[in-house]
Amino acid sequence: MPGLFITLEGGDGSGKTTAGQRLYEQLIKEGYTVTFTREPGGVRIAEEIRNVLVDVNNKEMNAKTEALLFAAARAQHLVEKVTPTLEAGGIVISDRYIDSSLVYQGIGRGLGIKEVYDINMFATDHLIPDLTLFFDVKPEIAIKRVMSNDREVNRLDLESLEFHQNVYEGYLKICDLYSDRIQKINAALSPDEVYEQVYQKVKELL
Amino acid sequence: MPGLFITLEGGDGSGKTTAGQRLYEQLIKEGYTVTFTREPGGVRIAEEIRNVLVDVNNKEMNAKTEALLFAAARAQHLVEKVTPTLEAGGIVISDRYIDSSLVYQGIGRGLGIKEVYDINMFATDHLIPDLTLFFDVKPEIAIKRVMSNDREVNRLDLESLEFHQNVYEGYLKICDLYSDRIQKINAALSPDEVYEQVYQKVKELL
Repeated sequence: MPGLFITLEGGDGSGKTTAGQRLYEQLIKEGYTVTFTREPGGVRIAEEIRNVLVDVNNKEMNAKTEALLFAAARAQHLVEKVTPTLEAGGIVISDRYIDSSLVYQGIGRGLGIKEVYDINMFATDHLIPDLTLFFDVKPEIAIKRVMSNDREVNRLDLESLEFHQNVYEGYLKICDLYSDRIQKINAALSPDEVYEQVYQKVKELL
Repeated sequence: MPGLFITLEGGDGSGKTTAGQRLYEQLIKEGYTVTFTREPGGVRIAEEIRNVLVDVNNKEMNAKTEALLFAAARAQHLVEKVTPTLEAGGIVISDRYIDSSLVYQGIGRGLGIKEVYDINMFATDHLIPDLTLFFDVKPEIAIKRVMSNDREVNRLDLESLEFHQNVYEGYLKICDLYSDRIQKINAALSPDEVYEQVYQKVKELL
């Protein structure tokens, strides 16, 4: 496809959403056609699926159910929002994509990277991002940032520190596995310094 | 697993739910431990997923999203309701299971039997029914039966007759493919005659 597909990955509190929003505004200013979106969600049906995923009452949710719901939301989001922009030659910045599933469900929940990858290849018709930025910051620091926000707590926030540490190590594994496509951002720095790295990596590609 | 897993398949209006309910009551009377359930749904999280699937507003739902949502609901239903009964040596009668996805999404929506099968093997940990009964009745007759009921119309009811004909032919294909496990019930007959065939097939197995 003619457009450029950029995905932002990392734990909650890694600063990816803040940097993504700023990147979006800057690229718009520079005259690009840009869609900034998030997963799970981004379109109505995917938001309905998101509601099932984040509902704090759904404690009994099976890991495979979770993986399949993320893939379902992804498929809908892709067809309605990502693909149209890419086909029109625009830039899509997506806050989370396939790698989140590989790490959270494949590694965090222990379902296996290969199994979760296969499901996501079905969901996405094998659409792989042109560039993935991993916001690298230790979970102890990231969690403190989340706690100091007043965002509502959801089901996935209630995971243990051990889960978040597994996720972090999972991301490092994924970075090695897909080193051609994933680049690391030092996300322990200030928001300005984080953004500067993001902007440079994207500019190299444009 | 020690129990017996029976699934009921066929188009809407094929009489499978009515026969399943009667089979359930009869087996209970005979002293068996029986769970009678339906897909998608059967447990709380799966019912939430069902709501997304049947919502008449969700006309823009992508075929892959649909397939993944059915698989997600199936995974949850299995872990919470089917597996516990089978592990305890009981009988599970499920109104729809994997074959519905193979036929409706794999054939009806054109996603391919193999692709939908793979996703469902992930969702179910390869749990295949001991016996599947296909309620064989032409869609023209089945649709008339549905129309004469006063059940609320859902998103999947709104499909064309052509879709239901594809589904019917899909079921015949699946019957050939899995002839070791699937048995046909002549479902064009009266409810009593349909039930009698069902009961005989199940008794042969018990």
